[in-house]
Amino acid sequence: MISVEEARARILTKLGPLPAEIVPLSEAGQRVLAVPVVARLTQPPADVSAMDGYAVRAASAQQGAVLRVIGEAPAGHPFAGHVEPGEAVRLFTGSVLPAGADAVLMQENVSVQGGTFIVGESVSPTSHVRPRGQDFSEGGTILQAGQRLTAFRIGLAAAANHPWLSVHRRPRVAILATGDEIALPGEPLPPGGIVSSNSHMLAAMVSAAGGMPTILPVARDTEDAIADAAQQALGADLLLSTGGASVGDYDLVQAGLARHGFVLDFWKIAMRPGKPMIFGCIGALPVLGLPGNPVSAAVCAVLFLLPALRRLQGLPADPPTTLRALAGAALRANDHRADHLRATLRQDGAGHLLATPFPRQDSGMLSLLAQAQCLVLRAPHAPAVEAGEPVEVILMTADD
Amino acid sequence: MISVEEARARILTKLGPLPAEIVPLSEAGQRVLAVPVVARLTQPPADVSAMDGYAVRAASAQQGAVLRVIGEAPAGHPFAGHVEPGEAVRLFTGSVLPAGADAVLMQENVSVQGGTFIVGESVSPTSHVRPRGQDFSEGGTILQAGQRLTAFRIGLAAAANHPWLSVHRRPRVAILATGDEIALPGEPLPPGGIVSSNSHMLAAMVSAAGGMPTILPVARDTEDAIADAAQQALGADLLLSTGGASVGDYDLVQAGLARHGFVLDFWKIAMRPGKPMIFGCIGALPVLGLPGNPVSAAVCAVLFLLPALRRLQGLPADPPTTLRALAGAALRANDHRADHLRATLRQDGAGHLLATPFPRQDSGMLSLLAQAQCLVLRAPHAPAVEAGEPVEVILMTADD
Repeated sequence: MISVEEARARILTKLGPLPAEIVPLSEAGQRVLAVPVVARLTQPPADVSAMDGYAVRAASAQQGAVLRVIGEAPAGHPFAGHVEPGEAVRLFTGSVLPAGADAVLMQENVSVQGGTFIVGESVSPTSHVRPRGQDFSEGGTILQAGQRLTAFRIGLAAAANHPWLSVHRRPRVAILATGDEIALPGEPLPPGGIVSSNSHMLAAMVSAAGGMPTILPVARDTEDAIADAAQQALGADLLLSTGGASVGDYDLVQAGLARHGFVLDFWKIAMRPGKPMIFGCIGALPVLGLPGNPVSAAVCAVLFLLPALRRLQGLPADPPTTLRALAGAALRANDHRADHLRATLRQDGAGHLLATPFPRQDSGMLSLLAQAQCLVLRAPHAPAVEAGEPVEVILMTADD
Repeated sequence: MISVEEARARILTKLGPLPAEIVPLSEAGQRVLAVPVVARLTQPPADVSAMDGYAVRAASAQQGAVLRVIGEAPAGHPFAGHVEPGEAVRLFTGSVLPAGADAVLMQENVSVQGGTFIVGESVSPTSHVRPRGQDFSEGGTILQAGQRLTAFRIGLAAAANHPWLSVHRRPRVAILATGDEIALPGEPLPPGGIVSSNSHMLAAMVSAAGGMPTILPVARDTEDAIADAAQQALGADLLLSTGGASVGDYDLVQAGLARHGFVLDFWKIAMRPGKPMIFGCIGALPVLGLPGNPVSAAVCAVLFLLPALRRLQGLPADPPTTLRALAGAALRANDHRADHLRATLRQDGAGHLLATPFPRQDSGMLSLLAQAQCLVLRAPHAPAVEAGEPVEVILMTADD
């Protein structure tokens, strides 16, 4: 058995960022930049007003002075003339500051009558002016390769005049469930059978993490069936299997994959839930064989699949981000296997995150997993923890 | 001017959950349940093994006893016979416990020779047995209406034998940018013009939050153009406009919308950035008029659009979730407008969340917004805060 950390490192070392593709800005949300974004223009392109108001010369716009309105410059329609002492031009937020002006007088401090007004409050040079290039300048790098394109970054790339972005291709993940006992949801269920839940759960995880899942037909428990199914996955970026990976007599996944030249890297991790997890490659195709138990499969997916998808997408493939929380209940000393307790997470009145494991941690409890908000990490041989002592957690879901 | 809280309440009161639609399990990820999910079967369907091992009668499986293997029951192939004292049946994780057996002996504690083995460690009744219905029982509610379908919940719904789920329809959001100065990314830019960034930023936010954006053509600054554009939005669930909402002379959005019977609810909020925000309705169509400034539009979207999308999708439309953090720098006393400081967020060694506002908070800085991880909330008239004192924050982005 190898450790969680070693298993993750051995998986990630076989993976690299997928090649780039060009996508329109409108389809780039949540994708990962393959090359930096360089500004194609300067923003703002000129000194502009930060307010609705009047462009003035600060020297002549002191309290009590009378100024004459000589024109207006709505955003997009710059004023062509020149502002002289004693003059003002009506402006709006984003309007280009006309030549000659060096400050903006807020409209709240002015009431115009007959084309003139009295300055209510003196202004200083550069008041309410956004200088040219304050946000970014042409040729400057505004987003880095490897950054995920959040909505705000999409806005920034748009503002810098990019209609197309170069992003890493989305990982194609073939998902293969194996087992004679498996039926698809809604289909006739054989005696002693169970409904396939892993494939759809994993497909939803892959989609949410930025990949493109393909759910292959369920393979029966024969080498032939598994070999046939694997054939269909050979064009994918990752083959994810579930079931058939345990120690028993019916562990045919390896045998079926072997027909395509599968080379095993490891198949046992010192962790709970989810000890029996296969990793290896068929040529360049990485194969992650998750346990058939849904809770074990889910925890293994959080620990290994999500970092793998991050690396394939060009994100830093660090271990999953952990947060420091306080244990909401006492925890027993751990044995030699790293444990991953399903738990709720909330912030107490003092601002501490409080992680409270469910009293039942049986890996048969998918209904509890569905309500869990985090995994509490328990290292091998971790000593007992009292309620209120610190623990590390991995966030799992939103709070809905 | 009204408060942020009153503005949000007045928006939400005009919105309700959209009607339900039926989607296949494979497309239900991130959607919101419109009706509870009731288990269609019992899981596990019988007492099953939690381990690879042997089904036994605990009374006859005490240390040193010799048991005879009378058959095997791989998952999906229940053993048809009956286990008598002195007998054992080979089982795998998930195998149905055969009649007569009441416990499972772990295979690690056994080595079979010639069809018999010696019990290495006594077992008790129910050892390593998952009782029928431990996870859920037929007819029991396993997911509630109003819950978002995370990957784990998709797995649970699958396990409960649901190929289809009833979810709230995705909100259709028409996005209308207005302004003579606006050009689409990559298109010719007029003098003094700026590239449209709000539409694509908002579309990405809408998509990420579960809605379906439609970006309408940019409307020029005439009542006619705005009225024509609004016509195209009449079938949407929400019309989101940006720009043209400020106090200036060119505020034509309201006038253009008025041709369709727009009824204004409010147009000014005591907040920064983003004071000028319109809300009203054209018949049953809610209209949210965001500021043209991208940072202001983004902050208003976090505070008002996201809760609106939550309510339309059937989620609880609470205020955005806030976390308690410590200020990473001293903050000045606030004026009468609620402020929303763009900030980084990290956890310090002691487990405290540390929110550090960027030194520059000018709402022209889209490049800073793109790096912000949270908004630090500053209530109207909030007193000055020393570094290390508590503040409330709204999370904005992932950490990539």
